[in-house]
Amino acid sequence: MNFEQLRALLAVVDEGTFEAAADELRVSPSAISQRIKALEASVGNVVVRRTVPCTATEAGAVLLRMARQVALLETEAIEALGAGDPGQALLPLAVNADSLATWFRPVLREAAGWQDTILRLQLEDEEHTSDLLRGGDVVGAVTAAPRAVAGCRTEKLGAIRYQPVAAPDLLERFTRLRGGRRVVEWSRMPVLRYGPKDDLQNKFLRARGVEQLPAAHQIPSSEAYLAAARAGLGWGLVPEVQMGESLAEGSLEIVVADGHRDVPLYWQVWKLGSARIERLTAAVHRASASLLSAAPGR
Amino acid sequence: MNFEQLRALLAVVDEGTFEAAADELRVSPSAISQRIKALEASVGNVVVRRTVPCTATEAGAVLLRMARQVALLETEAIEALGAGDPGQALLPLAVNADSLATWFRPVLREAAGWQDTILRLQLEDEEHTSDLLRGGDVVGAVTAAPRAVAGCRTEKLGAIRYQPVAAPDLLERFTRLRGGRRVVEWSRMPVLRYGPKDDLQNKFLRARGVEQLPAAHQIPSSEAYLAAARAGLGWGLVPEVQMGESLAEGSLEIVVADGHRDVPLYWQVWKLGSARIERLTAAVHRASASLLSAAPGR
Repeated sequence: MNFEQLRALLAVVDEGTFEAAADELRVSPSAISQRIKALEASVGNVVVRRTVPCTATEAGAVLLRMARQVALLETEAIEALGAGDPGQALLPLAVNADSLATWFRPVLREAAGWQDTILRLQLEDEEHTSDLLRGGDVVGAVTAAPRAVAGCRTEKLGAIRYQPVAAPDLLERFTRLRGGRRVVEWSRMPVLRYGPKDDLQNKFLRARGVEQLPAAHQIPSSEAYLAAARAGLGWGLVPEVQMGESLAEGSLEIVVADGHRDVPLYWQVWKLGSARIERLTAAVHRASASLLSAAPGR
Repeated sequence: MNFEQLRALLAVVDEGTFEAAADELRVSPSAISQRIKALEASVGNVVVRRTVPCTATEAGAVLLRMARQVALLETEAIEALGAGDPGQALLPLAVNADSLATWFRPVLREAAGWQDTILRLQLEDEEHTSDLLRGGDVVGAVTAAPRAVAGCRTEKLGAIRYQPVAAPDLLERFTRLRGGRRVVEWSRMPVLRYGPKDDLQNKFLRARGVEQLPAAHQIPSSEAYLAAARAGLGWGLVPEVQMGESLAEGSLEIVVADGHRDVPLYWQVWKLGSARIERLTAAVHRASASLLSAAPGR
């Protein structure tokens, strides 16, 4: 096993194909192929699934994780020694879409000042970002999972507070007077979801005793989801911090006053004595402290 | 083969798991499993890969496409006959992220008035949305591919014009005076990409003769990409229609005046006599006509 082979593995998984990996490392695709085969021979296991995009096998994930740690340690050692150009270190991170659309933005602004680091963000549902950490795909993740992945540490960040909101027209169409009380017809009012993994709205509906769940429009972008809610396509749970002037100007209304849901978030990051990881962690905490609610129970 | 089996196939692929499909159709997971097995027995082929998420096999894709057409035709026939409640029809669509962030938004506003239709958007790179059409995942797609997928028709929409932009600070840091001329150090200035499939910036650099491509920060959200450019994390190609006041207020500068790239877009949609597909197609054309540049060569 050598550094070149590990770098080839990293590039294949990060870029998705042998050709793109070759481009990234400025070698020929056959050189990439030889390095991966040599790596596989030395560990006695297939490490890359030749799918589109290529993914690491279970054995490959162990190596991938090691390869990222080695790459980061190598860069920082060269820096410490003043031994030539260390180049830029790659920090792959997993972030949920609503975080990237809101409180995580200041981290990008801070990173603009780090000329020694390249950020590679991956979007994933907060319930699943820790899988990317476990699989060696990323070094840090914003996650809803409080339990640390092996080899990682976990730190509370705070919670995203979601409010059930709808455009006034839509809400009026699905509100009835019953015995003098206004009742929302939850089983009929159209609903928005971010994607197949987004269960937030259905959980909300089940908690209110709604048995027949309405079909959901799917809008897989935080900003477009908010725009769809404002346009009256459906109601949805939207981060309070994202709503801006929508409530004040009357383009959105909160459907029920006691209906907010808090999604506590954690920062999970590899245990590794790396200055870049510590600097990133500090930036994540600064951003979350100013924009997230205190987590329930903290 | 029967309607129930096809509906089970649709739900498994759209929801990703047998459990979620059971939830969607309000039956037990074992009922879903039996229907899929019966379908597989009747066509003599495995139709669903039992992965997470579940995907259609090649044989399954043929059925999936048929199932979506049957579901839509059934709904519209029940409507035409006035025979009971037709329910809402599901229109799965593939859209590229930059379209959803810009000119596609009015389509969502129009759809808010269609109480008989549920939109399921999937985000995909415009070079790959036609694969989703081919695989039976979606009925319509915004795509960069002008050649119609079998069974589809294709219509020009116009082009997204991308401008190479950077924050003034970043640009100044990577501009040198050489023989009295200002020269941008393309091989050193950090660059932003949307994801591994986003080759727009590298194509731009290669066209300018840059051989050593800089490492790219990855920001997989159109809005966050723009925010990262404004924050000075890197330069990037940003849709003109998305920049708003960024140029006027000075938070972004166009790096080179003749550097824009036009990405022509097409609307590909199934050939099927469906009123919903025609209404959607008209909405897509209205939105693109007001917000996209005329496509080169049109």
